Amino acid sequence: MENLENSSDSKETVSPLNYSGFKLNSTISHRDGKNMGFVLVHAGAGYHSESKAKEYKHVCKRACQKAVDRLRAGGLALEAVTAALVELEDSPFTNAGTGSNLNLSGEVECDASIMDGKSLNYGAVGALSGIKNPVLVARTLLSETQKGKLSAGRIPPCFLVGKGAEQWAISHGIPACPTEKMTTKFSLSGYKRNKRKMELAEQVETKRRRQSCGHENDFGCLEPVEGEENNSACLDTVGAVVVDWEGNVAAAVSSGGLAMKHPGRVGQAAHYGCGCWAENARNVSLYSTAVSTSGSGEHLIRTMLARECSTAMQAENAHQALLEAMQNKFISSPFLAGEDCVLGGVIVLRCCTCGEAQRSEDIQALLVEFLWSHTTESMCVGYMSAQDSKARTHISRLPPGAVAGQSLAIEGGVCRLGTPSD
Amino acid sequence: MENLENSSDSKETVSPLNYSGFKLNSTISHRDGKNMGFVLVHAGAGYHSESKAKEYKHVCKRACQKAVDRLRAGGLALEAVTAALVELEDSPFTNAGTGSNLNLSGEVECDASIMDGKSLNYGAVGALSGIKNPVLVARTLLSETQKGKLSAGRIPPCFLVGKGAEQWAISHGIPACPTEKMTTKFSLSGYKRNKRKMELAEQVETKRRRQSCGHENDFGCLEPVEGEENNSACLDTVGAVVVDWEGNVAAAVSSGGLAMKHPGRVGQAAHYGCGCWAENARNVSLYSTAVSTSGSGEHLIRTMLARECSTAMQAENAHQALLEAMQNKFISSPFLAGEDCVLGGVIVLRCCTCGEAQRSEDIQALLVEFLWSHTTESMCVGYMSAQDSKARTHISRLPPGAVAGQSLAIEGGVCRLGTPSD
Repeated sequence: MENLENSSDSKETVSPLNYSGFKLNSTISHRDGKNMGFVLVHAGAGYHSESKAKEYKHVCKRACQKAVDRLRAGGLALEAVTAALVELEDSPFTNAGTGSNLNLSGEVECDASIMDGKSLNYGAVGALSGIKNPVLVARTLLSETQKGKLSAGRIPPCFLVGKGAEQWAISHGIPACPTEKMTTKFSLSGYKRNKRKMELAEQVETKRRRQSCGHENDFGCLEPVEGEENNSACLDTVGAVVVDWEGNVAAAVSSGGLAMKHPGRVGQAAHYGCGCWAENARNVSLYSTAVSTSGSGEHLIRTMLARECSTAMQAENAHQALLEAMQNKFISSPFLAGEDCVLGGVIVLRCCTCGEAQRSEDIQALLVEFLWSHTTESMCVGYMSAQDSKARTHISRLPPGAVAGQSLAIEGGVCRLGTPSD
Repeated sequence: MENLENSSDSKETVSPLNYSGFKLNSTISHRDGKNMGFVLVHAGAGYHSESKAKEYKHVCKRACQKAVDRLRAGGLALEAVTAALVELEDSPFTNAGTGSNLNLSGEVECDASIMDGKSLNYGAVGALSGIKNPVLVARTLLSETQKGKLSAGRIPPCFLVGKGAEQWAISHGIPACPTEKMTTKFSLSGYKRNKRKMELAEQVETKRRRQSCGHENDFGCLEPVEGEENNSACLDTVGAVVVDWEGNVAAAVSSGGLAMKHPGRVGQAAHYGCGCWAENARNVSLYSTAVSTSGSGEHLIRTMLARECSTAMQAENAHQALLEAMQNKFISSPFLAGEDCVLGGVIVLRCCTCGEAQRSEDIQALLVEFLWSHTTESMCVGYMSAQDSKARTHISRLPPGAVAGQSLAIEGGVCRLGTPSD
């Protein structure tokens, strides 16, 4: 990743209404025909133990590489973002696809969605069992939408759930996968531990509702136990945002959902406008934007955070816009007025055509700004441009003393693609 | 409905960019303590045959009456809107609850959602079988959210689907109902007819995708056959919007979905921001707004029409705002760029405190503006204030020659509640 400076030194944590300055690092990438594009991925906003940091970073790195492979082969953003998600889902360490949190009945039920900024088409699946890569079903739903109407003028579905989604996937050539194969020893031990803790908590808490935020992790699992393997059960949703050589953006998200969720519960990863968003620049909007979210599904749904961040990113200052969106549309959102602990994270990419490169008719030079922000303890991200030899990865953390759910961290960088510097 | 003038004479049909003037009829209602409030319901935007007009109107009338009964008993908007929806779902003539369209497998699978403008809480169910009143499950999910966290700090779900939703409902005291009891002779004969038509269409259309709009009804069933009973299979979603004596708004929506939909398909009625929306006035917004949508689910999802209409209704002129929203955010939406036939309808209610009644500390006088607009052939609505002896109902139709999916009708009225005219 020679041409992208790591911007982790520009990290900051702010409490609401305490805006601080932030400089995006400007860097230059090479122009190389279709060998252009950029990917930013996340392996969840939540809690990432130091002991597992290497695994989280490694899967982000591989996901970036898969996306870049597709971009280098001439693939568009939609294909690249799908490739990244498949890699993230296949990792047993992430809470998506294989290794997903188990629900109350001990089953894997996945949510995923994908959006194409060029066509604005969208596909989503919810509470899906028995399919190894939920994002492939969302991707196929999106493709089928683009083919037009079904027989007798029926409009193709953009959102399928449960058994029906599984049957549709299989009938569209996506292989079935026994749920046991998607269950890992980590997810199973996490389930057993959470079940014991829940039973204990229910004895103690009977008829007393919990409202406190402090030490307890609100992701449906109690504080990770030092030395135990399964901290990954506390993580949420994975996702990616991509811009391709044509300047198209795409976004995707995939999640096993809350640990110990009720069967049939669908989180933000399958909610339009909540889990991901992608919109190419058009008349009224200067920037193409792509967003993927992670965290506490119900909070991300009610605040429609992906779309809100996308809308906000049309403002001039990307960092300021994201900071304000995270504070006003998330932490202090009127839609979460009763919540004193608002947990989530976003990755955001925006890009516009650079003025100096408009001389070239074939290749547009793109200015790509990429950011991540989270109110959770930590968030693991990776990013890479198509010119880079490898991805950079990073686990962003709230600084010691900052209260998760009430403060946020924001970081980012900027990358210029295709300028005549080569 | 002595105090509400029917505004059907103010009906107009416009093609995009051809705005016309529109006068809302101003009427006065009586002040009577808690005996105040207003309800507007719809029995679907779609195609309502003249022969069945009486049935459609009758169910709208009963739904209004149920809501008003709750308002008169001191119930808030959320309770009243639920009561209206239960009545609409129970009618065998509407495509919601009993009498819902059957899916490809001949099963009933319902979507429903509800939103409370006061708390901004939300509940939804998708692809739900085996429960007579899906709106009651959505309502209970909303209530449970308001009770705070579950054991071990788990966040309660706001959206459940499929079998899990059914199990959750039963465990929360909502009675199960065999799917056969929700299937009517109309829905069954419609299913058989549609199945024949689909098979025929698939023979003719094999490998040829349909894109045309003209005579074909795009709701998943071909043109209604003259003389056949089951035109109701072509209708969509039902819904209601309510304002109560405190000025709180609420909205709800319920649907059996597209006829011959794929099992597991979830439409706009279970999509946050797409099927219904309700927001009380607060600092940044002068008006309380409530919206419920109906029509082609995928179009209503991708345009997030309920929330868009709600946002638009903060503009000064309610009629102009809705007209522009329906044209720019629906018919001509960039999210439906490939669609030449955009089918849907909305009911909208907005209200604000009247200046002259702010002397009263106990009772606020409310100015209620209510509108409906649709691009479908017709839309059946009913409305009533808590002072009225009976509801008014109306089937709004596009005028002869107007092309469904490309033109719209818009109508409405205004009602002043609680002013010192008594």
